[in-house]
Amino acid sequence: MSNIEEIAKQFVNGFFTGMSTNIQGLAAVYRPESVLTFESQKFEGAEAILGKLTSLPFKMSGHQLSTLDAQLASGDLLILVTGKLKVDEDENLINFVQNFKVSVTQGAGGEITGFVVKNDIFKLVY
Amino acid sequence: MSNIEEIAKQFVNGFFTGMSTNIQGLAAVYRPESVLTFESQKFEGAEAILGKLTSLPFKMSGHQLSTLDAQLASGDLLILVTGKLKVDEDENLINFVQNFKVSVTQGAGGEITGFVVKNDIFKLVY
Repeated sequence: MSNIEEIAKQFVNGFFTGMSTNIQGLAAVYRPESVLTFESQKFEGAEAILGKLTSLPFKMSGHQLSTLDAQLASGDLLILVTGKLKVDEDENLINFVQNFKVSVTQGAGGEITGFVVKNDIFKLVY
Repeated sequence: MSNIEEIAKQFVNGFFTGMSTNIQGLAAVYRPESVLTFESQKFEGAEAILGKLTSLPFKMSGHQLSTLDAQLASGDLLILVTGKLKVDEDENLINFVQNFKVSVTQGAGGEITGFVVKNDIFKLVY
């Protein structure tokens, strides 16, 4: 992976577009061994994770991404995203941070063919 | 590792005690392959990382830890910590988030014998 920040950005853009427009479509990036910790509650496997993401107590559609940092970690990408999101009808945006460990699948020519989220930790910061 | 939250807490307590009282002592948890991203600047290897940690533009001694979440990730611990810290002489505390991927070394009886930080991402959140 030559430019890990660019690849991380590609994943993050796809992920948050999914959160805004098609949460069910995110099922493609989770596996039975994926783990999500959402506000300190743990969900294991694609089904449990999607169950949580489709029943969030607030709209992710109002999110704004602020920063992205990425590192290589055991051959995967470790990504830390910070941003702000709209909670319910509240006009104030609340800071959040989300941390992913993502496996990048690549084709024979090195092109990105997909992403699998192995670890996902989401926290509101206030 | 039976209770990953407890083990993560043990690492985090040791790490932030080190940040407050003995930053040079933290050299023991970094290796040549360790990577720190500090406010989007990347430092590789124990020497570069310690160089950064010993020249921070603010005191970490005023930090307060708020939350800790941990998951298993490729046999290591993935830890996300949130907290607040004192920046310079400013009375207001600023939120920060720090993400670690930590290798836990254990003795024959399963007891923890040490920690190695492979990945470390620090971000102020404001």
